[in-house]
Amino acid sequence: MARSDGRNDEQLRDIKLTRGFQEWPAGSVLVEFGKTRVLCAASVTEGVPRWRKGSGLGWVTAEYAMLPSSTNTRSDRESIKGRVGGRTHEISRLIGRSLRACIDLAALGENTIVIDCDVVQADGGTRTAAITGGYVALADAVTWLGAAGRLADPQPLSCAVSAISVGVVDGRVRLDLPYEEDARAEVDMNVVATDAGTIIEVQGTGEGATFTRSTLDKMLDLALAGCAEINTRQAQALAEPYPGTLPEPRP
Amino acid sequence: MARSDGRNDEQLRDIKLTRGFQEWPAGSVLVEFGKTRVLCAASVTEGVPRWRKGSGLGWVTAEYAMLPSSTNTRSDRESIKGRVGGRTHEISRLIGRSLRACIDLAALGENTIVIDCDVVQADGGTRTAAITGGYVALADAVTWLGAAGRLADPQPLSCAVSAISVGVVDGRVRLDLPYEEDARAEVDMNVVATDAGTIIEVQGTGEGATFTRSTLDKMLDLALAGCAEINTRQAQALAEPYPGTLPEPRP
Amino acid sequence: MARSDGRNDEQLRDIKLTRGFQEWPAGSVLVEFGKTRVLCAASVTEGVPRWRKGSGLGWVTAEYAMLPSSTNTRSDRESIKGRVGGRTHEISRLIGRSLRACIDLAALGENTIVIDCDVVQADGGTRTAAITGGYVALADAVTWLGAAGRLADPQPLSCAVSAISVGVVDGRVRLDLPYEEDARAEVDMNVVATDAGTIIEVQGTGEGATFTRSTLDKMLDLALAGCAEINTRQAQALAEPYPGTLPEPRP
Amino acid sequence: MARSDGRNDEQLRDIKLTRGFQEWPAGSVLVEFGKTRVLCAASVTEGVPRWRKGSGLGWVTAEYAMLPSSTNTRSDRESIKGRVGGRTHEISRLIGRSLRACIDLAALGENTIVIDCDVVQADGGTRTAAITGGYVALADAVTWLGAAGRLADPQPLSCAVSAISVGVVDGRVRLDLPYEEDARAEVDMNVVATDAGTIIEVQGTGEGATFTRSTLDKMLDLALAGCAEINTRQAQALAEPYPGTLPEPRP
Amino acid sequence: MARSDGRNDEQLRDIKLTRGFQEWPAGSVLVEFGKTRVLCAASVTEGVPRWRKGSGLGWVTAEYAMLPSSTNTRSDRESIKGRVGGRTHEISRLIGRSLRACIDLAALGENTIVIDCDVVQADGGTRTAAITGGYVALADAVTWLGAAGRLADPQPLSCAVSAISVGVVDGRVRLDLPYEEDARAEVDMNVVATDAGTIIEVQGTGEGATFTRSTLDKMLDLALAGCAEINTRQAQALAEPYPGTLPEPRP
Amino acid sequence: MARSDGRNDEQLRDIKLTRGFQEWPAGSVLVEFGKTRVLCAASVTEGVPRWRKGSGLGWVTAEYAMLPSSTNTRSDRESIKGRVGGRTHEISRLIGRSLRACIDLAALGENTIVIDCDVVQADGGTRTAAITGGYVALADAVTWLGAAGRLADPQPLSCAVSAISVGVVDGRVRLDLPYEEDARAEVDMNVVATDAGTIIEVQGTGEGATFTRSTLDKMLDLALAGCAEINTRQAQALAEPYPGTLPEPRP
Repeated sequence: MARSDGRNDEQLRDIKLTRGFQEWPAGSVLVEFGKTRVLCAASVTEGVPRWRKGSGLGWVTAEYAMLPSSTNTRSDRESIKGRVGGRTHEISRLIGRSLRACIDLAALGENTIVIDCDVVQADGGTRTAAITGGYVALADAVTWLGAAGRLADPQPLSCAVSAISVGVVDGRVRLDLPYEEDARAEVDMNVVATDAGTIIEVQGTGEGATFTRSTLDKMLDLALAGCAEINTRQAQALAEPYPGTLPEPRP
Repeated sequence: MARSDGRNDEQLRDIKLTRGFQEWPAGSVLVEFGKTRVLCAASVTEGVPRWRKGSGLGWVTAEYAMLPSSTNTRSDRESIKGRVGGRTHEISRLIGRSLRACIDLAALGENTIVIDCDVVQADGGTRTAAITGGYVALADAVTWLGAAGRLADPQPLSCAVSAISVGVVDGRVRLDLPYEEDARAEVDMNVVATDAGTIIEVQGTGEGATFTRSTLDKMLDLALAGCAEINTRQAQALAEPYPGTLPEPRP
Repeated sequence: MARSDGRNDEQLRDIKLTRGFQEWPAGSVLVEFGKTRVLCAASVTEGVPRWRKGSGLGWVTAEYAMLPSSTNTRSDRESIKGRVGGRTHEISRLIGRSLRACIDLAALGENTIVIDCDVVQADGGTRTAAITGGYVALADAVTWLGAAGRLADPQPLSCAVSAISVGVVDGRVRLDLPYEEDARAEVDMNVVATDAGTIIEVQGTGEGATFTRSTLDKMLDLALAGCAEINTRQAQALAEPYPGTLPEPRP
Repeated sequence: MARSDGRNDEQLRDIKLTRGFQEWPAGSVLVEFGKTRVLCAASVTEGVPRWRKGSGLGWVTAEYAMLPSSTNTRSDRESIKGRVGGRTHEISRLIGRSLRACIDLAALGENTIVIDCDVVQADGGTRTAAITGGYVALADAVTWLGAAGRLADPQPLSCAVSAISVGVVDGRVRLDLPYEEDARAEVDMNVVATDAGTIIEVQGTGEGATFTRSTLDKMLDLALAGCAEINTRQAQALAEPYPGTLPEPRP
Repeated sequence: MARSDGRNDEQLRDIKLTRGFQEWPAGSVLVEFGKTRVLCAASVTEGVPRWRKGSGLGWVTAEYAMLPSSTNTRSDRESIKGRVGGRTHEISRLIGRSLRACIDLAALGENTIVIDCDVVQADGGTRTAAITGGYVALADAVTWLGAAGRLADPQPLSCAVSAISVGVVDGRVRLDLPYEEDARAEVDMNVVATDAGTIIEVQGTGEGATFTRSTLDKMLDLALAGCAEINTRQAQALAEPYPGTLPEPRP
Repeated sequence: MARSDGRNDEQLRDIKLTRGFQEWPAGSVLVEFGKTRVLCAASVTEGVPRWRKGSGLGWVTAEYAMLPSSTNTRSDRESIKGRVGGRTHEISRLIGRSLRACIDLAALGENTIVIDCDVVQADGGTRTAAITGGYVALADAVTWLGAAGRLADPQPLSCAVSAISVGVVDGRVRLDLPYEEDARAEVDMNVVATDAGTIIEVQGTGEGATFTRSTLDKMLDLALAGCAEINTRQAQALAEPYPGTLPEPRP
């Protein structure tokens, strides 16, 4: 039984990483997984939140949001509802946690990097796309800080981070679900991994159904292979020079 | 005394209107005035707000917001602050009011069109860019509704709407201020006009300074000429066919 | 075609300015334009908001609100709704901006003056009445600060500020619209001006209709004449001695 | 030891009840107890809250608030803080409860009366002044409803309601405390009573100190005598004709 | 006419005070009045709120809340509604005020004690149970602070505090109303008293009905006798040693 | 290297399930995992949320919260902060999702069951304790609905649900982490499983560290064995009769 977009079960959608999408942030990456498009911007500010001051450690955090026009049916704006929903909170925390796993906060020095992940178009897998693009934006922001001579240590990034969704649809384990599959998946899992092949986060949920240990194992195999492939794309993208003008080192 | 970007005082920045920027909304336009980039999406829903039900009239409203990464220095997310700021409210209301001026709500029938104007990159004049791009998105949404056979009357749009900023900078009246000029302008004015040359809205403010009646007149001259030029660009963009697939009429 | 209250098109309503309406604020003025009644209180506090500390500059800001019982049909209390509406925000910002145009904040020294404009009875033109009364309250607060020896410079006020509404009703340009006219006006404009005849703010909006440049010019003529007349009333009111006891200068 | 305003311990401040203070509400009373001034407006709306629909019973509720400029030192606006404080809630509930004690809600029919009590100037005893003035406004609103032929039964008011503060200051039991006494009172009590001499509400609090049963008895004696005197003033005020135009009965 | 639970009109329900109910807070007491169960926890933190810093005075405050599952019909969670209701505010303030009456805040030193009163099961009289149990938790927290050598003065408690409800039900004055009586009481009163027999707070409300001075006197007699009996139970409970390990004094 | 509480790495803490802890909810269970204590109450209401009406399906949802006094250091009350935090949202959603996996919502009929999980004492593993206790409360609520004759089908529960935490501490994979271990765990995982041995949810997170696939496998082994053991305890607890009085079937 073929997938509606013609892919094999273990195949990723087309992935595109456009660096330098915006002018002002130190890192700005438009990431695309098929029709899913997320704008990931890494903004640098000097200093850290109050509770961290004087620790010598930096801070990396993330905020995820969807444009109202990004979904098939327009969704309400959370600023107008006056509160951030549970799903938004959950995903923001996941992205921040995942990206902090690849950075040495002591080497970062007392700088804060905020990764804003704004979904421009949603077609499934926005949170894993956000982590994938967020890592590239973060890498650019670190390059920017390095050029400015503001890092405590020259190489704070210890690994690369990528993420992918996997699930059980129509009784088959499939990689990188678009919305159409995600909406009717029996099991839904997101895996965040490093380019060393280790795992940062695993979140698997039976939606209505439960799943066996052997299905779980199969999903993990597929997801880790997908992450490895995404790591290659990230490395290719980052092999290009920094898109824009790097700052002068401070005197 | 030349402008920092080399323009004459009465010259607009480069304007680009990209229709069909997103897949799902009935109208989706990325509008650019120089480095200022605003994504204007017109989403259609059947029915109208409760207070309007049964009136036979449709409704058009707008919501303006800035991505945190759109500004030179990252701005806080209003959803997280839990309240929409005064400036955001003011601009949303201005856009909605301006676009309602060009549409016959009885002809629209009991449909609601929400125009989301999300600033992707801010370099001055975001509200006037939003109105300019919002009109084009609205026109596409109306085309979409017409194809679907859901309009009460075939042609609800009575005119085209454009907007531009004008101000006094360094003692000179100038058109289409980028951020660098806007931030130090003595007088700042926004004008919304129709392609018939009539005015929908005028908002002029002395920033620190006050201004004479004759300066006001000069600003109006410049702004109305600018609006006429923008109308031409809108007409050119809309001369192209609808970007995407139009719906079938309902049986 | 006569106006329902018998006035000519270019005639103001009866204006009354009662200084010293309340005991505690440094300035407290009840301003009346016909049935419209707004209580404008100028409260002085030492120091300035955090973001301004150490600048040597003072701060003037305004808050506008309507009593629930001030409107024809009772309106809900914004404190209970838990958020300040867009209209309230917009008007508060307009009043603050307008009054800051007449005061030298360096001469004020690091003092804050809050102008509270609470509408006791609404019959059109509450925002322009608030600016008109707010100026007189501000002038009294400045006198109070001067007597207390707390100004950085003896005369911080550079001009007087007044405001009036003007509009197109029944196809005629008319000054100072009561609610009954305002509700059905085709064009609605507010003008804030100084006693030097210069303009601080112009806000004109077509309500449903658009308007020509020549109508705009006619509205400006009428409004500026109205502002000049209001300036005279303000000057007469302020010619009376300070209502209440002035503080002793600090030793 | 004399009181700072020269009164005897058991003497009320000057009381003034001005009916018809505002144009639009069915009842509008400015009540003054010395320098304390509260605007009490009774607004009528047809129908009752959802949870009461179809019961045949009406509803009376109250909202208390202080103008920022009403207090000696300006207080922050609760609408801007985004939440109504505990004290405001408590007093609003007290006023509503007290006024519901005098009205037969079945006789009122399915009408809602909201009593807005906005403090214009605060000098102690604002909540008891609000109840006292609120009763007069309520009586006017009932007269208005009667004239309009909208009452289920001609006389829904079963008694008159008044309220007064009493306390222990400088070791002496005193009636009707102004702010200066209230702020340093050892015991503070509010009593709400009917013109039949019965009690609706008693709230007595030791502020720092505790108090004996015999002090409590003495405070009750003084307060009930004060309430009786206030009832007389209310009756005198209400002996005058309705201030304004009564509606025609519905056909 | 007997009470539904077989008690005499002047009889208390069974009272139980379980100290050391939780592990972490310095004081933790489960108080039971019949089926009403409230968990009262006294948490100690060093320092005082900002507005009190440097005064040498400590601070005691209380927060009251009901578990959603504590009421006969599940009640909504205030955290989810996003605002604390009027009743909750009122009761929290009452508990804090009552407990502050028994403690010398100078002797407490710059420490803060928060008394959390969470209703586990509600059957009438939760606020008076909270005060009764809160006092015992407070006493334990004071013992804890004393052992830690953190009091400015060894004995900050000047008296014991207890509270009880009383009311008029079926025309009879009754003590300690369960929910079934409370819901249909004509008059409802709460009295907070000290073990010296003096009064801290009296709150009596006619619910629909009003009440005479002589009924008020009778209710006060009954309530003060009830408070005395509760004081005995508190003293018995506190005669047992501190439940848990006391801290070592600071060096 | 032994664990601080003397357990083996693969050993659970003492588990206690007390049914009938509260009087009013249809199910009320106090669950204890060592010092961790969570009160799980299942409240039944007739009908379903608006978006589900007429579907014939029931609804099960959960709300998780911590008492301020439940944590080592007092935590602020979310009702007072005015917003529910991200962690609370995340856990509430996890509990609801997990418990919905074991119930046939069509068999439940149009009834709503809310599972309130209020943490009385926190010592690690509160979310997994909440799921474990929540299942038992849910089972009691289903029994209650069955007795009342309100189920669409006699046996809506398809399996039992339990949950446990597992992690890597000091380089060792350990089951059921108390707070002391959880706070310094390198990897932290929660597993929700059925008594059929299938998985409902897996959430594993590297805290600072990442983890290999083989560590993940080992954690899953341990967690699934733990869940099986907890299922036995749940079955034992539910083998006792319903604690309290079951309702009569509706006529």
